[in-house]
Amino acid sequence: MKLIAIQGEKGSFSEIAAKSFFGINIKVSTSFSFSDVFHKVKNKKVNYGIVPIENSLYGSVIDSLDLLQKNSLYIVGEINLQISHFLISNKRYKLSQIKIIYSHPQALGQCSIFLDSIPKVKIIPNYDTAGSAKMLNKYQDEFSAAIASREAAKIYGLKIVRSNIQNKKKNYTRFLIIAQSPHRGKLNNPKTSISIELKSIPGALFKALSVFALRDIDLLKIESRPLPDKPFQYLFYIDFVGDLKDGKIKLAIDHLKEISSEIKSFGTYETGKFILK
Amino acid sequence: MKLIAIQGEKGSFSEIAAKSFFGINIKVSTSFSFSDVFHKVKNKKVNYGIVPIENSLYGSVIDSLDLLQKNSLYIVGEINLQISHFLISNKRYKLSQIKIIYSHPQALGQCSIFLDSIPKVKIIPNYDTAGSAKMLNKYQDEFSAAIASREAAKIYGLKIVRSNIQNKKKNYTRFLIIAQSPHRGKLNNPKTSISIELKSIPGALFKALSVFALRDIDLLKIESRPLPDKPFQYLFYIDFVGDLKDGKIKLAIDHLKEISSEIKSFGTYETGKFILK
Repeated sequence: MKLIAIQGEKGSFSEIAAKSFFGINIKVSTSFSFSDVFHKVKNKKVNYGIVPIENSLYGSVIDSLDLLQKNSLYIVGEINLQISHFLISNKRYKLSQIKIIYSHPQALGQCSIFLDSIPKVKIIPNYDTAGSAKMLNKYQDEFSAAIASREAAKIYGLKIVRSNIQNKKKNYTRFLIIAQSPHRGKLNNPKTSISIELKSIPGALFKALSVFALRDIDLLKIESRPLPDKPFQYLFYIDFVGDLKDGKIKLAIDHLKEISSEIKSFGTYETGKFILK
Repeated sequence: MKLIAIQGEKGSFSEIAAKSFFGINIKVSTSFSFSDVFHKVKNKKVNYGIVPIENSLYGSVIDSLDLLQKNSLYIVGEINLQISHFLISNKRYKLSQIKIIYSHPQALGQCSIFLDSIPKVKIIPNYDTAGSAKMLNKYQDEFSAAIASREAAKIYGLKIVRSNIQNKKKNYTRFLIIAQSPHRGKLNNPKTSISIELKSIPGALFKALSVFALRDIDLLKIESRPLPDKPFQYLFYIDFVGDLKDGKIKLAIDHLKEISSEIKSFGTYETGKFILK
């Protein structure tokens, strides 16, 4: 049975994503932080890790991006999970009775319109959505609620105060499957993720993107992150269509080396399915 | 006397940035959220607002970016403030006695190496650095500390447990000055900020950057944010050298319109000075 490290507790969206990707016959190793997930994969405590990398409403999960860059691990798969948030509590409170709401900052961001509509409620960021539900169950806090999945409500015996409180009904989080070694073998719909640090030359980013445009390689995503040693200079994460084993992609990477001072490859993997809930 | 809206309390880095930019002869209007700062500027409750937009260690302040896009306000200036973080507490505790640390998530991110070195301490995100210091002073929590500025320690009568706990000594936050109307008149070292939503055409981002590269306009920053209605499609924030009143820049913006479905301009302003502490 595969052992998968997730951030957060049972009932977290990471657990739901892991079961959607690997099937229900897995064991999850719950972890407090994303950093713990990467450590467990690196030290072979688990077969795989799964981490959220990006949400369609609130954007990139920067801690996951930064940990990808720091650790020499590989992406071997991805999955896009539809995310519905529920306001849940110990008792069948009315919304007007709730005084405090706990959840993960990403979930709070995805529900910002709902939260702006109840300005008197105190919002407290926490390490996990399901972890917030677990805490409510453990301490039986009065007039308190958590934002978490329907699954978390069920696991921790909580009542639903409000359903689907995210800013848009269509809300997806993309999760990456992290492993010690890259994927081998042929893939359908392959995509590749790399990071590049550009040389200090005029139009460097334009030249880097020309590497892909001139070869008709589709760019899927570009994301900048700061270089801590070089204030207001950036590292770029790039996702593109294609396999690192393809001749055209190899040539593109060689071309990219002329413009970059450093390139890191996180591997080629199959483009993720959308899991609708 | 100018009235400036800041996020956070007296002693916050926003207040220090406001005084560095406008001089000490200002009044600050403290605000719980970034959204409150934008509202106060929009509704003429203050002369200007000031918000952090980017940190050299931890990256963009996405709530500020998203509020720029949502509100029809202008950037009229910027300032780069060197940020030093202090672990501060009610009593002269040893580090080993501290059980809980409160601070703003950005500050926690900038001090992640220090925080990883004390894994047994509970880390609690809060709305503000100085607000965390104010809270410690008010409730006199035992064995608790905040991460905040030296100024916050002084204002709220707290003791310094550890100095300069950010990941790198050189740590800067860029703050934007927000106003109801764009800056008028000639500027030294002008820069311009815009956001663009690209048309669904092949190589759209490459074509957008070519607008600048072909005219030798220096790109300073590009940042992607999700389009909430279009899962995994992006809005791009672009900062570049030049004034919207220059002929070359006008031509570049016209060219950009051919590739974009929407362009928003946040105005031209003087490139920010670095304030070393």
